[in-house]
Parts: sequence; C-alpha cells; structure tokens
Amino acid sequence: MFKATIYVTLKESVLDPQGVAVKGSLHTLGFTGVQDVRIGKRVEVLLDCEDRAEAEKQVKELGEKVLSNPVIENFTFELEEVA
Amino acid sequence: MFKATIYVTLKESVLDPQGVAVKGSLHTLGFTGVQDVRIGKRVEVLLDCEDRAEAEKQVKELGEKVLSNPVIENFTFELEEVA
Repeated sequence: MFKATIYVTLKESVLDPQGVAVKGSLHTLGFTGVQDVRIGKRVEVLLDCEDRAEAEKQVKELGEKVLSNPVIENFTFELEEVA
Repeated sequence: MFKATIYVTLKESVLDPQGVAVKGSLHTLGFTGVQDVRIGKRVEVLLDCEDRAEAEKQVKELGEKVLSNPVIENFTFELEEVA
C-alpha cells in the first residue's frame, strides 16, 4: 500500500483570483504584511499497488489526467509506502 | 521577506465528501487500486516581516483564524526566507 501526497498549484503566469480575494481579506483583518497569496490543492491518495514503480506510474497518470489541468496547473507528488 | 507554505487538511474523523467523489471518478476511469482520497488546501503566502519570529507568529494567527476552521481542520506550515 502506498500513500501519495499530490500538490496541484497554478502556474506562475496564471492569475489566482481566489488568492487575490484572500489577500484582500487578510489585509482587512490587519495582516498588512501579506504581499501575495496563491491557493492550490493538496490531495492524499491511498493506493493498493504491487510495487513502487507501478504506484509512481499510476500517480503520474491520475495527477496529469484527473487531478490537474496541465494547461494552467503544475503538479508534484511525494510517495511513501504505508502498512 | 518570508514565504509560508500552509497546508490545511480535514481532521481524520471528518468525512470528506469531495474525496469520496474523486475516489468514485478515479475508479470509473480505471484507477481501481485507489483505496481512499482526502482533499486539502495548499496556500502560499508571501509575508513582509522584520524577522522569523514575527513571521511565524503571523502565520500561526492567520492560519488559525482565517485559512482554517480549527473545529474540523488541521493546519501545518513551512516557513522560508526569500529575497
């Protein structure tokens, strides 16, 4: 069994309206030192696989095809074997 | 200037309907080895602060008060000094 922690973030060149909104709220609440906010996803997937190579292959595939939009998003992942 | 990377995740005991939905889609798309999916947020905050201690204090405060709901969510963060 493998646990993949997948991070999906917007590409640098893409405007993050959600991040802009959160930045505005933080300023309103007094966190005036905040210069920029970027919001992304953190997805944990528990995967039943024979071996690490197979797990890695599946995580790359599901990350690229399902969990992220390669046109505007980057995705990275960490993989660990669990009990 | 400091960059905080904040992770907001649902507590273990809390049902994740979004994760259940994604798991169903992954099964439909042939990723039958997926046993569980948990979805969280990854928030990058660029913070203009005098020193690390002040940055840490502000990140804890904005993490607990704005970015997460302590009743159902956990939050952790990494802090690095940037140019």
